[in-house]
Amino acid sequence: MVRPLAAQDREQWQHLYDGYHRFYDRPDLPQDFFDAVFDRLAADRPDDFHGLVAEEDGRLLGLTHYVFHPHMWFPEGVCYLQDLFTADQARGRGVARALIEGVYAAADAAGRPRVYWLTQEFNYAGRTLYDRVGVRTPFIRYNRPL
Amino acid sequence: MVRPLAAQDREQWQHLYDGYHRFYDRPDLPQDFFDAVFDRLAADRPDDFHGLVAEEDGRLLGLTHYVFHPHMWFPEGVCYLQDLFTADQARGRGVARALIEGVYAAADAAGRPRVYWLTQEFNYAGRTLYDRVGVRTPFIRYNRPL
Amino acid sequence: MVRPLAAQDREQWQHLYDGYHRFYDRPDLPQDFFDAVFDRLAADRPDDFHGLVAEEDGRLLGLTHYVFHPHMWFPEGVCYLQDLFTADQARGRGVARALIEGVYAAADAAGRPRVYWLTQEFNYAGRTLYDRVGVRTPFIRYNRPL
Amino acid sequence: MVRPLAAQDREQWQHLYDGYHRFYDRPDLPQDFFDAVFDRLAADRPDDFHGLVAEEDGRLLGLTHYVFHPHMWFPEGVCYLQDLFTADQARGRGVARALIEGVYAAADAAGRPRVYWLTQEFNYAGRTLYDRVGVRTPFIRYNRPL
Repeated sequence: MVRPLAAQDREQWQHLYDGYHRFYDRPDLPQDFFDAVFDRLAADRPDDFHGLVAEEDGRLLGLTHYVFHPHMWFPEGVCYLQDLFTADQARGRGVARALIEGVYAAADAAGRPRVYWLTQEFNYAGRTLYDRVGVRTPFIRYNRPL
Repeated sequence: MVRPLAAQDREQWQHLYDGYHRFYDRPDLPQDFFDAVFDRLAADRPDDFHGLVAEEDGRLLGLTHYVFHPHMWFPEGVCYLQDLFTADQARGRGVARALIEGVYAAADAAGRPRVYWLTQEFNYAGRTLYDRVGVRTPFIRYNRPL
Repeated sequence: MVRPLAAQDREQWQHLYDGYHRFYDRPDLPQDFFDAVFDRLAADRPDDFHGLVAEEDGRLLGLTHYVFHPHMWFPEGVCYLQDLFTADQARGRGVARALIEGVYAAADAAGRPRVYWLTQEFNYAGRTLYDRVGVRTPFIRYNRPL
Repeated sequence: MVRPLAAQDREQWQHLYDGYHRFYDRPDLPQDFFDAVFDRLAADRPDDFHGLVAEEDGRLLGLTHYVFHPHMWFPEGVCYLQDLFTADQARGRGVARALIEGVYAAADAAGRPRVYWLTQEFNYAGRTLYDRVGVRTPFIRYNRPL
């Protein structure tokens, strides 16, 4: 079951989100980081990130965080799905797909149906799913060097 | 000279921005589109797009539009440089570079120095510049199919 | 066990190689095609393709075909690994890796240790292995339009 | 004028081919390398590399080297265009296009019309041309680590 993140998810959410950051080689994030981010998600402000979780029998199997931001060409704005993670023990069961579809539904409900996300070119496991639920574009990301 | 977009740029701005959309095969956008977008830029609201233009002797040579949006990992948010265009007759003179550096300066002034943009993998002319002023990442974009 | 293709492999080899072509959406190749290719492999001429197969208890689990060709910069020539295929029922058991390593050994024995291959950017399953046994280069392939 | 490399091109050919290797950050190749390669090209053996040059008023403006090698699926074999280079002072004049078309003609004459080449993803100048005379494929190259 995919549902909005709730206050009682605090502990399990951190466990999942820490796993997500470890996947991207960012271990040992400080507790302050998780506290601040969860507060933002819990506030559920229209212009900040929202969270969805996949739950089964009280256990969180995955999470996603998305935000609406303005877009020049689409006056209603667009939806950026930034974080997506499935617990190791829940892989291959459709959790990530259900979470993406949950974001699609939330975007529809908000009247901003255009959803996009970025992924590393070599995220093969992710892309196997993304090719099914999304469309690869030829756009690549450049960052300012900092 | 790179400076913020101003009310008196209305006409020249539209000419440039129309050229930008033609580059991406979106000709014949309605006047309403340009009116609405310019109004947003002119309002210069903190949570919507801002514009910079490159001017020389009263003529606009290029434009860029950027927006700050929230980011999960960086609490101050990030800066998304969405549109960038140089007039055909001003190519090769450093206009695009000056505009990107203008966005960098604006992002610094806003305390949100992380700037990124997306470009088509085969935008060779653009990427020749981007490789100098930015860092290519391995991230590619997926869209929800609509 | 990885070993050179032999005459008695004729039937099982065709079954595998047909599966390979079906993977690339080339079903229903004529019998003549398989006859001609097998004859070339069986001839094992120095300047044409060679075959290796992975066998277990008399059953073929996978195949690979490779050829040595001249190279401008390396006078000894290079080894092009063109075809690689594992039977569906033998996936995940290291067959493809063993075949690639078999080609490495054959290339070493021939004094032409430089081995390369091409794969589709979206061959995620293949690339998961290739990233372990090979090095991705930034080279992409262009074809003459025919 | 594009024509086969000839014995009298020896000196100018080396100057060009050295420029090609400098482009790929391989400066200071030994004289032995150039001697050996030119001998191979001059021999013009069916199974080794062939050279074409673009000449104008006795000056060489560019070169290309190509080879035919076996292919599993096309019994007649294929043509690999490995090296392509235009002198700095001759850029933008269609030299590279003429050389590629020269290889196409040579491949047709040899009854092996399938021509391909590899290029670095970020070779923007080259790809601007290749997109016109060729077709980008989704194939990327992996090398054995040595």
